[in-house]
Amino acid sequence: MNNLTSLKQKLRTFSEDRDWDQFHSPKNLSMALIVEVAELVEHFQWLTEEQSRTLSEEKLGEVKEELADILIYLVRLADTLDVDILRAAGEKIEKNRTRYPIEKAKGNADKYTKFD
Amino acid sequence: MNNLTSLKQKLRTFSEDRDWDQFHSPKNLSMALIVEVAELVEHFQWLTEEQSRTLSEEKLGEVKEELADILIYLVRLADTLDVDILRAAGEKIEKNRTRYPIEKAKGNADKYTKFD
Amino acid sequence: MNNLTSLKQKLRTFSEDRDWDQFHSPKNLSMALIVEVAELVEHFQWLTEEQSRTLSEEKLGEVKEELADILIYLVRLADTLDVDILRAAGEKIEKNRTRYPIEKAKGNADKYTKFD
Amino acid sequence: MNNLTSLKQKLRTFSEDRDWDQFHSPKNLSMALIVEVAELVEHFQWLTEEQSRTLSEEKLGEVKEELADILIYLVRLADTLDVDILRAAGEKIEKNRTRYPIEKAKGNADKYTKFD
Repeated sequence: MNNLTSLKQKLRTFSEDRDWDQFHSPKNLSMALIVEVAELVEHFQWLTEEQSRTLSEEKLGEVKEELADILIYLVRLADTLDVDILRAAGEKIEKNRTRYPIEKAKGNADKYTKFD
Repeated sequence: MNNLTSLKQKLRTFSEDRDWDQFHSPKNLSMALIVEVAELVEHFQWLTEEQSRTLSEEKLGEVKEELADILIYLVRLADTLDVDILRAAGEKIEKNRTRYPIEKAKGNADKYTKFD
Repeated sequence: MNNLTSLKQKLRTFSEDRDWDQFHSPKNLSMALIVEVAELVEHFQWLTEEQSRTLSEEKLGEVKEELADILIYLVRLADTLDVDILRAAGEKIEKNRTRYPIEKAKGNADKYTKFD
Repeated sequence: MNNLTSLKQKLRTFSEDRDWDQFHSPKNLSMALIVEVAELVEHFQWLTEEQSRTLSEEKLGEVKEELADILIYLVRLADTLDVDILRAAGEKIEKNRTRYPIEKAKGNADKYTKFD
């Protein structure tokens, strides 16, 4: 068992205790997830890139809490769909290795569909 | 070491090999993250909640890949900010326990700020 | 002159008066825009579709303000790029007429790329 | 009648002709709207702010189409809720005039809640 599994179990219990499974359809959870990510984006919207790399302690504390909310909804959503996200991420990295070979992608932010 | 740490390391190497750190400011990564979440939302936008709970194999495969992309950008973003998201999520759950006591939150989807 | 033009002018003056043009890059405005849309999504995340069609007066007032914020940022962003959004929308509808012919799209929420 | 009213009417007919009103709940339309905005954000995610101000002709054409999609869903959503967005935007600007007085907001991107 890894720690994401333990987080998943905690969230499952949290939801069951509050009778929230009725609200936690994948559709609704995807909405809640994007709302949390937008709260993160809000912290960065008027910052320069450089400022976003050097947050104050206070700002970093707020950002950390948004990152936590995002992970929570992501794990909860994956649970309702019975998806192992760690495994899925591992598989995606392998796919990206093929899509973004070092010689084409080096120093280049283009999407792979723009490579010739 | 847990598996998220291993994922973080893989992504760090992936980015370094491609000289992508220059693009990976927290600001930019928050944008990439919300774009991935929106691709997930797109799968659910015209489905009923019930349909979102019972996806076809094909659709589930596509959704799984979006979930992977989200985890990848989330872990990468947390790494650039040096945030331990598993720990942050654990702390947030404890906070939520106080904000959403079972007797008030049971069967109720209101935000805690609406509780009296 | 139509009313969107008048709104555009007002927003331009509002920004100039506050010396905000320095923050209003299209990149930043796209972030502000998605943050506002997420605030709208938040109102609907735990509602059923039916409930979202029959909002209370209070809720509708809050939603109306979010819609205003979205239009404001959309018009402001289009202005920084010198895009006539009404004209662009008119052209897009014509494109959609071709992409979604009535006989294929009737009662069908599929994206046009799924039509055969 | 202004041009937004004409756009609203066109979209209403477009939807009726395709029997799409069943899908166009405010909940679903808010999802479609955020998906379109994310497609816009995607164009800017790896650009510097400066690059986002000086798009190539090709890129600008793509961005213009996203802006059109956003306006289309925004107008459609407002119509299902019977909200006059131009009027709402006008009211919001007046509210913002009070929230962001020139002497406090000049050259300052803080949210009004941060003003003392």
